[in-house]
Amino acid sequence: MSSSLHERLVVVDGLIISRWHRPVFEAMHEGGITAANCTCSVWEDFPTTMKAMADWKTRIRENADILTQIYTTDDIRAAKEAGKTGIILGWQNSTGFGDYLPLVQVFHEIGLRIVQLTYNTTNTVGSGCYETTDTGLTDFGRDLVDEMNRVGILVDLSHVGNKTARDAIEHSKRPVAFSHCLPAALKDHPRNKSDEDMRLIAERGGFVGVTFFPPFLNRGIQSTIDDYIDAIEHVMNVAGEDQTGIGTDFTQDQDDAFFEYITRDKGYGRSLTTFGEIVNPEGIRRIEDFPNLTAAMERRGWPEARIEKVMGGNWLSLLDRVWL
Amino acid sequence: MSSSLHERLVVVDGLIISRWHRPVFEAMHEGGITAANCTCSVWEDFPTTMKAMADWKTRIRENADILTQIYTTDDIRAAKEAGKTGIILGWQNSTGFGDYLPLVQVFHEIGLRIVQLTYNTTNTVGSGCYETTDTGLTDFGRDLVDEMNRVGILVDLSHVGNKTARDAIEHSKRPVAFSHCLPAALKDHPRNKSDEDMRLIAERGGFVGVTFFPPFLNRGIQSTIDDYIDAIEHVMNVAGEDQTGIGTDFTQDQDDAFFEYITRDKGYGRSLTTFGEIVNPEGIRRIEDFPNLTAAMERRGWPEARIEKVMGGNWLSLLDRVWL
Repeated sequence: MSSSLHERLVVVDGLIISRWHRPVFEAMHEGGITAANCTCSVWEDFPTTMKAMADWKTRIRENADILTQIYTTDDIRAAKEAGKTGIILGWQNSTGFGDYLPLVQVFHEIGLRIVQLTYNTTNTVGSGCYETTDTGLTDFGRDLVDEMNRVGILVDLSHVGNKTARDAIEHSKRPVAFSHCLPAALKDHPRNKSDEDMRLIAERGGFVGVTFFPPFLNRGIQSTIDDYIDAIEHVMNVAGEDQTGIGTDFTQDQDDAFFEYITRDKGYGRSLTTFGEIVNPEGIRRIEDFPNLTAAMERRGWPEARIEKVMGGNWLSLLDRVWL
Repeated sequence: MSSSLHERLVVVDGLIISRWHRPVFEAMHEGGITAANCTCSVWEDFPTTMKAMADWKTRIRENADILTQIYTTDDIRAAKEAGKTGIILGWQNSTGFGDYLPLVQVFHEIGLRIVQLTYNTTNTVGSGCYETTDTGLTDFGRDLVDEMNRVGILVDLSHVGNKTARDAIEHSKRPVAFSHCLPAALKDHPRNKSDEDMRLIAERGGFVGVTFFPPFLNRGIQSTIDDYIDAIEHVMNVAGEDQTGIGTDFTQDQDDAFFEYITRDKGYGRSLTTFGEIVNPEGIRRIEDFPNLTAAMERRGWPEARIEKVMGGNWLSLLDRVWL
């Protein structure tokens, strides 16, 4: 029953930052993911990020039996038809542009579709969620948002500081997203979002993707898939049933060096946070467990139409409005 | 009469390296150029070249009333229909790849369509035409040619050393080109090509575009458009009427610093050659004079079908076979 519904769904994961090798691609395919925002850049500069994008082209070609690159929402629908997993190339920082605005169009042309403005600390665009003082979106930051609006790249604000995020929500002419976050109402944490901010983003036509990354969950590594559904329900009550979705933040097969890199400023500087042991909630430990999510929603008695929207339909509709 | 024929033609210029500003774009449009291979990189590294490609996107957008970017041969036909000048993005060196083969596909995706393997001296791919000892195509050079073959980028050998060029002609699985050269039979010069090499490239389905760059012409800056037609006729007799075309090498509005940059090794090193004063042949001094070329061919009594081929049809047919 449940697996049959999952198999019919367009499933979109708003953020995965796993180790990009064949076993993870197979897990995404087995888990029934139709499309996922896959992180290509965290702290890297422009040339390194461009090479990371190039490496993705090679990976997609070498795994073309199960992967396909997503440029348009029609590509997501086609991936579903073809039974493949669509790769949306995305960044968790805007340093990859090298502060050179004409590169925004170039990166868009090779498939960049989602960019988080800042990652944890301050860059030339604005402040991150771990920065001591959030000084807001800069003048250059506004220019970058304008250019991303023009070419059709989604503005992601998950790791962005609250003031910078509000500035961006208000400045952007297109809807923006928290692609992967949890409600501060359930756990007070610099990475979690207040109901007020989630309401603001939704009022402007935007979107909230919900993660289950244990350090941001109230019960941490003791959490189960039902705690995750609770968090999704909280977000849905705030942002609305049509503007809520999934953004797992799966870090599957990553090693200690990876977590060291992402939790230090610029990859090598002072430590910004300590995650401790990462054990995903029981029931959704691994990417392969994705069908359990649909099943858990069914157990809650969600109507099929709502499951369809939260599992991917809402992402599709947001991207339809942003990607042009 | 003559201008009426010129207006009907698909005109392709296999190489322009002029100053990329509005007056040159207007000259290209006024001259009736349907598409031209426009140089984006000479000695530059990967990040600088990528930014130069990005700058082209801005230029094409800002001059969209007369310019359009060419990705396919159908785009060339569409440019003719729309009365616009098509910009083919090309390089005169392969340093822009930064020796990172996965970038070939990325650059192809943003429109790179013609790449000369070496510019005047030796790089990791092979030797240039001014290098003391031409050591031939390297192992990496063969890999690069393979990758360019795979994605559909034309291999250009104009400034390449003779041995390296012969190696590339023989290794490439797709036709290659001298996009802009003159016959050594008319003037002995390191940049000019022997009848033997032009015959070899043609035998392999390749192509010879003819320049009138005065330092490589027998009569230098005393030359007229008829000397240019003589050179074209010589090439046509060697490479064949279906494999000969135009590659002007127009350097319109460039300044002394530009010529200093292109004639020194890597842009700043030892001087490789001295051009002296550059005055293009009378009758074809400026890009705006392009219709005079068609008229001069008519005066020679060339049949219309031949003029049509040499002025652009042969380029189109070559690119049809190479670009995929």
